[in-house]
Amino acid sequence: MSKGTVVLAYSGGLDTSCILVWLKEQGYDVIAYLANIGQDEDFDAARKKAERLGAKKVFIEDLRAEFVEEFIWPSVQASAIYEDRYLLGTSIARPCIARRQVQIAQKECAQFVSHGATGKGNDQIRFELTCYALYPDVKIIAPWRIPEFYNRFKGRKDLMEYAEKHGIPVPVTPKAPWSMDANLMHISSCCYLDQLGSSLGVSHAPSDLYLMTKNPEQSPNTPDMLEMEFKSGKPIKVSHVTDGTTKDTPLEIFLYLNEVGGKHGVGRIDIVENRFIGMKSRGIYETPGGTILHHAHLDIEAFTMDREVRRIKQGLGIKFSELLYNGFWYSPECEYVRHCIAKSQENVEGKVQLSVFKGNVNILGRESPKSLYNEELVR
Amino acid sequence: MSKGTVVLAYSGGLDTSCILVWLKEQGYDVIAYLANIGQDEDFDAARKKAERLGAKKVFIEDLRAEFVEEFIWPSVQASAIYEDRYLLGTSIARPCIARRQVQIAQKECAQFVSHGATGKGNDQIRFELTCYALYPDVKIIAPWRIPEFYNRFKGRKDLMEYAEKHGIPVPVTPKAPWSMDANLMHISSCCYLDQLGSSLGVSHAPSDLYLMTKNPEQSPNTPDMLEMEFKSGKPIKVSHVTDGTTKDTPLEIFLYLNEVGGKHGVGRIDIVENRFIGMKSRGIYETPGGTILHHAHLDIEAFTMDREVRRIKQGLGIKFSELLYNGFWYSPECEYVRHCIAKSQENVEGKVQLSVFKGNVNILGRESPKSLYNEELVR
Amino acid sequence: MSKGTVVLAYSGGLDTSCILVWLKEQGYDVIAYLANIGQDEDFDAARKKAERLGAKKVFIEDLRAEFVEEFIWPSVQASAIYEDRYLLGTSIARPCIARRQVQIAQKECAQFVSHGATGKGNDQIRFELTCYALYPDVKIIAPWRIPEFYNRFKGRKDLMEYAEKHGIPVPVTPKAPWSMDANLMHISSCCYLDQLGSSLGVSHAPSDLYLMTKNPEQSPNTPDMLEMEFKSGKPIKVSHVTDGTTKDTPLEIFLYLNEVGGKHGVGRIDIVENRFIGMKSRGIYETPGGTILHHAHLDIEAFTMDREVRRIKQGLGIKFSELLYNGFWYSPECEYVRHCIAKSQENVEGKVQLSVFKGNVNILGRESPKSLYNEELVR
Amino acid sequence: MSKGTVVLAYSGGLDTSCILVWLKEQGYDVIAYLANIGQDEDFDAARKKAERLGAKKVFIEDLRAEFVEEFIWPSVQASAIYEDRYLLGTSIARPCIARRQVQIAQKECAQFVSHGATGKGNDQIRFELTCYALYPDVKIIAPWRIPEFYNRFKGRKDLMEYAEKHGIPVPVTPKAPWSMDANLMHISSCCYLDQLGSSLGVSHAPSDLYLMTKNPEQSPNTPDMLEMEFKSGKPIKVSHVTDGTTKDTPLEIFLYLNEVGGKHGVGRIDIVENRFIGMKSRGIYETPGGTILHHAHLDIEAFTMDREVRRIKQGLGIKFSELLYNGFWYSPECEYVRHCIAKSQENVEGKVQLSVFKGNVNILGRESPKSLYNEELVR
Repeated sequence: MSKGTVVLAYSGGLDTSCILVWLKEQGYDVIAYLANIGQDEDFDAARKKAERLGAKKVFIEDLRAEFVEEFIWPSVQASAIYEDRYLLGTSIARPCIARRQVQIAQKECAQFVSHGATGKGNDQIRFELTCYALYPDVKIIAPWRIPEFYNRFKGRKDLMEYAEKHGIPVPVTPKAPWSMDANLMHISSCCYLDQLGSSLGVSHAPSDLYLMTKNPEQSPNTPDMLEMEFKSGKPIKVSHVTDGTTKDTPLEIFLYLNEVGGKHGVGRIDIVENRFIGMKSRGIYETPGGTILHHAHLDIEAFTMDREVRRIKQGLGIKFSELLYNGFWYSPECEYVRHCIAKSQENVEGKVQLSVFKGNVNILGRESPKSLYNEELVR
Repeated sequence: MSKGTVVLAYSGGLDTSCILVWLKEQGYDVIAYLANIGQDEDFDAARKKAERLGAKKVFIEDLRAEFVEEFIWPSVQASAIYEDRYLLGTSIARPCIARRQVQIAQKECAQFVSHGATGKGNDQIRFELTCYALYPDVKIIAPWRIPEFYNRFKGRKDLMEYAEKHGIPVPVTPKAPWSMDANLMHISSCCYLDQLGSSLGVSHAPSDLYLMTKNPEQSPNTPDMLEMEFKSGKPIKVSHVTDGTTKDTPLEIFLYLNEVGGKHGVGRIDIVENRFIGMKSRGIYETPGGTILHHAHLDIEAFTMDREVRRIKQGLGIKFSELLYNGFWYSPECEYVRHCIAKSQENVEGKVQLSVFKGNVNILGRESPKSLYNEELVR
Repeated sequence: MSKGTVVLAYSGGLDTSCILVWLKEQGYDVIAYLANIGQDEDFDAARKKAERLGAKKVFIEDLRAEFVEEFIWPSVQASAIYEDRYLLGTSIARPCIARRQVQIAQKECAQFVSHGATGKGNDQIRFELTCYALYPDVKIIAPWRIPEFYNRFKGRKDLMEYAEKHGIPVPVTPKAPWSMDANLMHISSCCYLDQLGSSLGVSHAPSDLYLMTKNPEQSPNTPDMLEMEFKSGKPIKVSHVTDGTTKDTPLEIFLYLNEVGGKHGVGRIDIVENRFIGMKSRGIYETPGGTILHHAHLDIEAFTMDREVRRIKQGLGIKFSELLYNGFWYSPECEYVRHCIAKSQENVEGKVQLSVFKGNVNILGRESPKSLYNEELVR
Repeated sequence: MSKGTVVLAYSGGLDTSCILVWLKEQGYDVIAYLANIGQDEDFDAARKKAERLGAKKVFIEDLRAEFVEEFIWPSVQASAIYEDRYLLGTSIARPCIARRQVQIAQKECAQFVSHGATGKGNDQIRFELTCYALYPDVKIIAPWRIPEFYNRFKGRKDLMEYAEKHGIPVPVTPKAPWSMDANLMHISSCCYLDQLGSSLGVSHAPSDLYLMTKNPEQSPNTPDMLEMEFKSGKPIKVSHVTDGTTKDTPLEIFLYLNEVGGKHGVGRIDIVENRFIGMKSRGIYETPGGTILHHAHLDIEAFTMDREVRRIKQGLGIKFSELLYNGFWYSPECEYVRHCIAKSQENVEGKVQLSVFKGNVNILGRESPKSLYNEELVR
């Protein structure tokens, strides 16, 4: 008899494929859920694989538009940035993914959800806080925190053997020595990196790590000039000044900014950050479109917002960034802060002209019907 | 009979030359004081000119080393940045310049100090707050706020006529349509700019505006790689990784960073900012060395500082930036905040490797004897 | 010919009566405006006096209900308290009074408004900031900052002589050696006090200073027990637990709390505070009803608000208090903060039982339909 | 063979006596440690009892003086107050008690420490964070979180039976229906209270709950007047103005303030607070001396501190209070904040006169050699 139904956050990779089979072994019915938030994935193949491994149902959900509108846009409004540098691409995606997982669980009357996040990272926390907030009675199965699981799968080798035994396709290329997370907003590579060069202390990221952005040394020698239009602090249009390309839906705007930013090597950072559970980790991030938006929004905001309101909003934005990083998107305080930030954006409206070139976003000018900038007064 | 002695902050330019002569006309003895804080100036010529115009004494003071050590370094420790973008190059210089002016006034028993700042900017405030803080009994003569003066000199033409009449050398090149301020840390150009293009709303800065930095489009096609070393949050050494150049005194370190940053077009921004007295103004800034330092310090700080201490220090740094921008360097609260920030820097120690290329500062790695980063724990 | 019409904030006292006559002397038509915000005043007599002195029109406006609803209630929601002790009774009243003055000026097509505040206090600033915010083109006549006025009236004696000469009734009782401000929320006495005892350094306030509150040493020996009901952080009802008295309109609630608080000597404080323009002053305040409300609201808020929301709201409340003290009620940032605070109060709902006795407000218990307090969990 | 040595935080009561015996049953050598931080306890009897129950050693440590100097004084300097009302008497004591426990463990080469705190409160967290901070390798035995223990002792009845079986003296009086914590600073009663009156929703605290303070309704009808003297923000002397009593060591000052405050019913509060682990709890506190000090320090601080420094310090004090409440006394951020707060107190010096009467602390006046209050300027 089944122990119940689990909705598993399934990526199509080795780990969550093994978890799928293991959960079935433990007596659960498994629904595989794979969110499309813009990562590079063969979704059809992933579906077939999950079905072959015994998933009762498979949900492949295109969340890209809601990811942009409901998660990236509020972060742009907040100028969300963690510890002055990280644009929070992974943190923003977690509540979006988990929200749909919980919706599926409720619709399919599943009491359980499961994920493949490790027991030491931020992601398990972000994921689980969202689940509990939106579906308080849900039970979470986190195999990497269950002794029966983590004692059985002590390394990649154990997973490979298990995969072979259970007919799970085994990746032929060796695993990269770093862990990655990819979505529409960014690709992050972290943690394992320092194994490469810890003896040096100062190890540099390998150049083939970057996937979303060109190396600025090889990027075009002429800039692209864009005009970004904002209303209520949200992007509503982007135009290429010379070739006339124009985008005006959230998803299209963001995809286009990724394209232009990626072409010019914009948005690469290599940082050490402080994790929620109290240790430091290294992160290498590529956030091309998000970086362009961050700069353009800062500019139109400074142009149209009262100085003292800006100061208060800056403090709320820092708070928002910490909440977001720590996984508290669906908490009373984060909802409160989002409301206050949105209120501050009512007059953030106008156009920003900028050029993108060799990793740089250069603001060239701005105009606004709501400008508080008075040429008469400034002498 | 003399009304007393005035120490005038003299730049060698048209305005303060006219003020020098005008103050003498009003019956004051005038001591001309010209601070060398790294601007491009013929100091000998300026001295001769002041003497010829009747200055009782002329002080040309090289403040570059103290500017770096006592003003720029604390700002680097604070990650001082105004409204998320401006590195405060002008604001930092004012208290340094005014402090020496007041010291001269006290040494020379002058009851008056004077300056050529306009009545609408931040500089008059920064200047005067410092004077009152360090020499509470001083009297300040601000000609641009005195009706007899500003009614007489309604435009540049009036100054030119006055100069010709009084044997003040008149500049032959027409004045640039923007006002500039230059020092070791940056060159700023502001305010008048929008006259150029206000009809467009979006006017772009002319390319010949930039003096300290190469246009990234024309800058070298290969990066320079540097290693910055910090102790207590202050730079103590910079080395070029390939050519072996090394600098280890504050002034030399900063000059070298300006050289490398300038060569690669680092540190240009074009912003609208909120001034102290409540209006917005446009500023175009070049801060090559300061920008490199800002990024390098952020990195070593994140690597070595406790997360929660960092969060508190971030708030203090924002407060410090506002105080600095508004001219309160010598105030009880700014001294208090500087003390607290310096305390936070005790363990900010180690080396940062970075490359400088086409306007970018890319952090490549870091190492520290005080690192809180534990490779064991991060998985 | 008239220089124009001035709306004068007229109190009925010696100073503003002299100003009324002086303004007429200067060639203005004067409209006298006297706000009833709960002070103890013979309004009919004041009206007749103003008419006799030559006021073109006299407006006596009962602002008590709007003062409570639109100014005191938001301050209760904010837990507004300046420097941890002062409940801001004077600061809250200024924008309420000035708003109506400006409305009258606009309705009566007067280009000028005038007030009798001195040139060194907070009140002139609070008053004028409101006027400019609501009627940007208004011109303000502040006699105590005009040399012709303040050189003529160097002391009370000059005002008395002027009054006698112009038929202005002269008060027969000598002026108290302190200045007072009274309204529905509080009576403040300040500034001059220390003249009484400055040689001692530690001078105590004379006991006849207090007018709104009984001395707790003489107050009743049995407590009164009240139940306060809140909705959205605002008081909606107060009941006396034993005698059954019930009030449920804002003005009546507040008057009743003043009565009970005053009877039991609640809300006296003697403090030194930091004024806006940078000096310290001594203030002695009586705020009976406001003090009861402050404690009751703190309690129901803590009972019903999420911890982290409370923390953010606490910071906004401190900001609000500073803005309010400094006169910025009608500023973009204060409107923004008020909006955010009101949002935080949506669930602040329920009843608080408290007793009032010998200067104390003792919270006895609370209940709420929105309580986040879970008896099950707390062990 | 022994499993090792445990230093047990032993209170002399039923729970920790049972834990002592249970730990021995489990195979540990037990050192009983009882801190005297001012609670009402027969320490000799407690020692004998612990010896009789088989403690290898018994340490009874008088921590009162260091509790006042190293823990209460910094909290007074910080104006530490949690959620605007609670003076943190329990929170302050925890790190003081745990520090000595860890010192004993290190001196006695014990690898283990143990405590009787429940698994749902703040105290376990405060206790354990201190232990780990000061003795990172220590192992903590928290019986109330160990299934073998909490499944065996499901209620007080199980503890009583166990006690009888093992010769542990059983208290004859029935346990009060609330839990208490007492030390020099306060007595708190909490949590269980609402069981008394939960059906009412608004249950009032029983009057026999209070032990440190007289009921103001029965307290003396004449005030006592005190003069408090501060240096660097710390109390250095207290004098009774009429009877001449004077105390000038930290412990004596604090004991005397407790005596006077207790006699007049000062410092009772009944609140609902937000606990660390996210729920609300009710607390009833008596803090007589601490309340007097809080008011006196606020006053001398406002009198001697620069306004803007005060504002920054206020924010740090709120942060400090949260850290203290949550148990982070020995954390990098709390040490940092304490340093910054101590720095702000350098000029907080002078005398405050106050009267204590019927639950009130009334500030009457103040004087200081460092006063920033300028009578000349305030008009």
